[in-house]
Amino acid sequence: MTVDKKREILQAAQQSFSLFGYKATTMDHVAKASQVAKGTIYNFFKNKEELFQAVIAELLQEMKDKAELVMDDDLPLKKNVHAALVELLEYRKSHQLTVKLVYEAKDKGTTAVREALDHIEELILNYLKEKIVKAIEKGDIRPCDPEITAFMMLKLYRAFILDWEERHEPLAKEEMFQLFDEYVFKGLSPS
Amino acid sequence: MTVDKKREILQAAQQSFSLFGYKATTMDHVAKASQVAKGTIYNFFKNKEELFQAVIAELLQEMKDKAELVMDDDLPLKKNVHAALVELLEYRKSHQLTVKLVYEAKDKGTTAVREALDHIEELILNYLKEKIVKAIEKGDIRPCDPEITAFMMLKLYRAFILDWEERHEPLAKEEMFQLFDEYVFKGLSPS
Repeated sequence: MTVDKKREILQAAQQSFSLFGYKATTMDHVAKASQVAKGTIYNFFKNKEELFQAVIAELLQEMKDKAELVMDDDLPLKKNVHAALVELLEYRKSHQLTVKLVYEAKDKGTTAVREALDHIEELILNYLKEKIVKAIEKGDIRPCDPEITAFMMLKLYRAFILDWEERHEPLAKEEMFQLFDEYVFKGLSPS
Repeated sequence: MTVDKKREILQAAQQSFSLFGYKATTMDHVAKASQVAKGTIYNFFKNKEELFQAVIAELLQEMKDKAELVMDDDLPLKKNVHAALVELLEYRKSHQLTVKLVYEAKDKGTTAVREALDHIEELILNYLKEKIVKAIEKGDIRPCDPEITAFMMLKLYRAFILDWEERHEPLAKEEMFQLFDEYVFKGLSPS
């Protein structure tokens, strides 16, 4: 029962944050949308900041689970990046909303929100870093700084799914793979 | 005389925008800093938006001139990117201020400011695109989409000089070349 309520609150909160943004979402709003008394929400989450952190942490966990399902540490990094991209791009629209939301919250949120988001980015980067370290060990990619390489991959992904669409047609999945392949793995130098 | 006054106004405006940001800069402020009557500023620039556009356009022209001086169309793209980076990184601090300013203006400025900034980004991208098209023609780099490649290079540059420093030591010049070399030209795949 308790788990169900928490689940419903988180779902309503996620929808509200996605539809109305971080600032415009209120605890009242989430209470109404989840058909739960406001007091009940406060049993689970101290304030909007905490609720937001929980929503983002859950989204991240979902994405990680989905990516993990299709990756295989015995395969080359390139294959895994490709497989993870296929999986994550299925959720491109909701992912875009999330990234925009994260930027809004960083801009307008409190210090607590910003710190939580920085921490989450750190988690993603560390996850990527681990995969890169393994790939270097296996001779799968050339030696490189795993930290900057993880940073570069995340920035590139964000630029392709978000910034590019500001003034162009969205990139098709296949284009996205090809770009990652060309820029990150093959490089532009003629072979 | 007129040219000198315009010059002084633009210099004072550039300093004010850099120090206090887009929003906090006023025409009064610029008049005082350039020791020019406010009416005189309005002879040259209709409003703050126009003044801002002129400042950004001038900065851009300066950077382009500097980069052009060290580039040579007979050399491979990689050498030219390296040379242009050496030159531009000399102005990294002021460049960082400019990029931050541009983001502030995009966020808080009027539609006119946003359009002007979009136009400027377009100019930079077209410039890069031309260089990339030539490099492909010469067999200097592998065939690729020049538009997305220009976009990717600009995003990567911005990420390295700006975002990286949010939570790390600034990258040294040599590191910057090496990263561009590894990620853009060589690629991570073992050769």
